[in-house]
Amino acid sequence: MRSDLMEFVIGQRVARMASVDTNGRPHVVPICFVLDGTSVIYSAIDLKPKSVETKNLRRVRNIANNPSVSILLDRYTEDWAQLGFVILHGAAKVLAQGAERNRAEDLLRKKYSQYEKLLQPGAPMIKINVGRITSWGNLTGVSD
Amino acid sequence: MRSDLMEFVIGQRVARMASVDTNGRPHVVPICFVLDGTSVIYSAIDLKPKSVETKNLRRVRNIANNPSVSILLDRYTEDWAQLGFVILHGAAKVLAQGAERNRAEDLLRKKYSQYEKLLQPGAPMIKINVGRITSWGNLTGVSD
Repeated sequence: MRSDLMEFVIGQRVARMASVDTNGRPHVVPICFVLDGTSVIYSAIDLKPKSVETKNLRRVRNIANNPSVSILLDRYTEDWAQLGFVILHGAAKVLAQGAERNRAEDLLRKKYSQYEKLLQPGAPMIKINVGRITSWGNLTGVSD
Repeated sequence: MRSDLMEFVIGQRVARMASVDTNGRPHVVPICFVLDGTSVIYSAIDLKPKSVETKNLRRVRNIANNPSVSILLDRYTEDWAQLGFVILHGAAKVLAQGAERNRAEDLLRKKYSQYEKLLQPGAPMIKINVGRITSWGNLTGVSD
């Protein structure tokens, strides 16, 4: 990943991830995430306020059937000269346990202090191996 | 659509729309949009700074092949008690011309003053007929 794209991705607190169900219908949800190195994204199957087991399961069911995902990181501002986005296309899988899952949990806890209360230790993680990347617009710092 | 969901949707300035390509891979992009009545969304094939013809075409090509789309409206804040989202599942098509397209353009121009400079008169519109709706979290006003 180009360094300017990495900087933009790392600076984001939320992303939107699209997956596809067995009938070819898309599903898109907001995710918290962390970028590890230049081409791996981790996102927890977490317990945000009011547990959303079903919706989390849909995302998990989708990627079990079709691992293709598209992750959008974008900036919206009313000054449209500052709009920009990065799309990470990749393949997702669930890490239920093991050293890599543990490390992903550590990385997410470092990025999001909210997880201290809201992430169950040992929660499954989604791992996305990023392939093709597309980007558009202004990805540099916003001048407010 | 329930009135609390409508209020949340109407209050958003940006949404994220996922579509699916001929190989079953998802694609997700930010969109400007307007809700018309309770179950129709319009979004322009617009000319944001630095024309993005190719990316717009991908979205258009996808829905020509598979009209299923998923539109996410969400709120991210660092107070996770305030997180919330609405997902509108629907069928999309392109309006190239005609009275409905003209009306969609008018509605978008009313919502976004930026379009005065950035929307080509007569631009094609994407129309989404909203079917199933899912929602989660806190959709009421944020107490900052």
